[in-house]
Amino acid sequence: MTAPIALRRLNAADPDFARHLDHLLSWESVSDDAVNQRVLEIIQGIRSRGDAALLEYTQRFDGVTATSMAELILPRARLEQAFGRIPEAQRQALAVSAERIRLYHERQKQSSWTYTEADGTVLGQQVTPLDRAGLYVPGGKAAYPSSVLMNAIPAKVAGVAEVVMVVPTPRGELNELVLAAAYVAGVDRVFTVGGAQAVAALAYGTESVPQVDKIVGPGNIYVATAKRHVFGQVGIDMIAGPSEILVVCDGQTNPDWIAMDLFSQAEHDEDAQSILVCPDAAFLDAVEASINKLLPTMERAPIIRASLEGRGALVQVSDMNQAMTVANRIAPEHLELSVADPQQWLPQIRHAGAIFMGRYTAEALGDYCAGPNHVLPTSGTARFSSPLGVYDFQKRSSLIFCSAEGASELGKTASVMARGESLTAHARSAEYRIQD
Amino acid sequence: MTAPIALRRLNAADPDFARHLDHLLSWESVSDDAVNQRVLEIIQGIRSRGDAALLEYTQRFDGVTATSMAELILPRARLEQAFGRIPEAQRQALAVSAERIRLYHERQKQSSWTYTEADGTVLGQQVTPLDRAGLYVPGGKAAYPSSVLMNAIPAKVAGVAEVVMVVPTPRGELNELVLAAAYVAGVDRVFTVGGAQAVAALAYGTESVPQVDKIVGPGNIYVATAKRHVFGQVGIDMIAGPSEILVVCDGQTNPDWIAMDLFSQAEHDEDAQSILVCPDAAFLDAVEASINKLLPTMERAPIIRASLEGRGALVQVSDMNQAMTVANRIAPEHLELSVADPQQWLPQIRHAGAIFMGRYTAEALGDYCAGPNHVLPTSGTARFSSPLGVYDFQKRSSLIFCSAEGASELGKTASVMARGESLTAHARSAEYRIQD
Repeated sequence: MTAPIALRRLNAADPDFARHLDHLLSWESVSDDAVNQRVLEIIQGIRSRGDAALLEYTQRFDGVTATSMAELILPRARLEQAFGRIPEAQRQALAVSAERIRLYHERQKQSSWTYTEADGTVLGQQVTPLDRAGLYVPGGKAAYPSSVLMNAIPAKVAGVAEVVMVVPTPRGELNELVLAAAYVAGVDRVFTVGGAQAVAALAYGTESVPQVDKIVGPGNIYVATAKRHVFGQVGIDMIAGPSEILVVCDGQTNPDWIAMDLFSQAEHDEDAQSILVCPDAAFLDAVEASINKLLPTMERAPIIRASLEGRGALVQVSDMNQAMTVANRIAPEHLELSVADPQQWLPQIRHAGAIFMGRYTAEALGDYCAGPNHVLPTSGTARFSSPLGVYDFQKRSSLIFCSAEGASELGKTASVMARGESLTAHARSAEYRIQD
Repeated sequence: MTAPIALRRLNAADPDFARHLDHLLSWESVSDDAVNQRVLEIIQGIRSRGDAALLEYTQRFDGVTATSMAELILPRARLEQAFGRIPEAQRQALAVSAERIRLYHERQKQSSWTYTEADGTVLGQQVTPLDRAGLYVPGGKAAYPSSVLMNAIPAKVAGVAEVVMVVPTPRGELNELVLAAAYVAGVDRVFTVGGAQAVAALAYGTESVPQVDKIVGPGNIYVATAKRHVFGQVGIDMIAGPSEILVVCDGQTNPDWIAMDLFSQAEHDEDAQSILVCPDAAFLDAVEASINKLLPTMERAPIIRASLEGRGALVQVSDMNQAMTVANRIAPEHLELSVADPQQWLPQIRHAGAIFMGRYTAEALGDYCAGPNHVLPTSGTARFSSPLGVYDFQKRSSLIFCSAEGASELGKTASVMARGESLTAHARSAEYRIQD
């Protein structure tokens, strides 16, 4: 007999609601001093001793027996072999997912643009891909082939010439499905290294590992801390917090579906957050009953329970307008609009990583194969950041090509501005271009 | 009698050239432990004591006599007053610059997009502006009205509802031109506070200062360190290194013009970097002669000399193709192509913040009024990042709206993928949507 779940219930009409909600959402990832120190030492080791240090750290931390860097390199042929080894259903699912992700991301590709002014001056931006991207893939339990697709495909669509993947193999354990995904996604080279040492190797390069321009992909606290430290030397993607879902329901969806959607977030880990918002108190009761009914049937029941009891909530609101206000306050990574007419609410949503619209659009569909990226801003950062995309693997150079006449006119304005800032060399450089 | 300048000369044919170039470019900004500790204390002070702490820090660090936060707030009316006070020529220059910057940035605005698949499934992205942006403007010497335009206008073009500016006023000194620029750029509110305390106030909010979603703008090491620490709580722009220019010349531009273009970078500060690359050794001599001739006439001669001698170089290459290779290695913030047909070389340039094309396009024109942004990636980060733009004040939410048929099909693929990752709740959530 399992104890019923102790699920937090909030009501937006409660005068203390804002404070309770703030408390529920509060999350700060902390890299403590010990982790920082350890990571800085590892980065220094890689920078000064390259491959030798990388091999040593890998032997020590991952318990592998490799005696040379050559043993830590997987060529494309090995990835192809993995693709051949996995069951046909998985091969098919990988191929379908990859193709849909590719088609969606093709639409994100930015192009160079220019325009010409009356005096012949040309202005614009040249858009180019990064030369080389590094993709961090966690080893062990959290090795997700879908993450390989979601991180590598946008880089390839952007035109990145070389995508280098690193993945640790604790005690030599390789995940064939991850390698198969790397094959499908077009990853060029794989190094079986991980941790802060892999991040440092990608950022600074070693004799074997090529230096990259940007590092993307999730990892543990050592990986996240290392990414923070190498930022500036290379680009990085977001530092992700725990995954979250906010389901807004009008009370008309099958409560079992909603319960399972909440579970699909909660099963990631104990810190994951699943929140349901609904104007109908009876429906909140029904979902809670579904949760209690379904929980014992779940393989990851202990994780789901810990997550729901620790960070989950059922929130009652007065109406759908208030639900939108709550959604914007949360700025959730995943927002499920399980309502009759989701389009109607879209203009009111200002902050969300991804919006799953209608009763049929389970978040899980978007996690794998709908097409949009599953790397999304967490912990309220959707207020200012976006899903991973092709635009993260492209960059822009401003273009300015002044005609003689244009430079002469602009020179007059620039001269006044520069002298107003006491930058005389700027002023004189501009004045040289003024025609008498 | 001034000593001739001791300017570094490099030759790309030298077998040690790559090493010399690496050494010349090496730059690492270091926030030492003392600065980190100080900044963390200040952030904690603002978070726990709000306005009271902000007022105290401002009194202490900026030497101002204000006794209440109300004295540290400038309304729009005060900005308008500043605009009325400055000379007509400056009013005119600000208006022209602002209008050109606005027109250029309008072209960067991203729009929402969707597409519909055969089964009725809709995919896309909704693009929305940030709610509120914070703009840091340094006080004292480095207070540049042009930076106010370059940071605030893209935010306003993006549709950011409120742009809040902070600017310290050491010993109460206000820069009227900066306030006038804030007026022209559409800044909504100004607080006369600065340093790490201003960054913390914008990131976390106080009783008077509203919490923002992103903080942009340059600052000293305390400001930069504070921005690094609050990243995640809010978005930040790049952490800028010293400014740099790479001039590539075919040897046919007036050497005085090139010398002054190099000066215009060098005059910023001793750490600024000015490099000239040319296939013609005689032209390098001519520019060096121009430098020695013009240097004594410059108001900031000591800074220019220190910058050129410490970090500048004249680089001889075998031909223009090699010049492009050097340019890509440097990935300069500013690249001036002072050549006959700059368009010809554009396809070979992979990394640069902004490209100034042709003999008439002095960098100074782009710094003020050509239209493109002057906030550009420094220290080689043009390999992976872009000029500040409207896109920095917009964010995207993925849109997924599956039809019943679409969800059923996708559910099959998602189920296989999820079970391959041992995420059973994901699989079951997807499977609920499969129609029999």
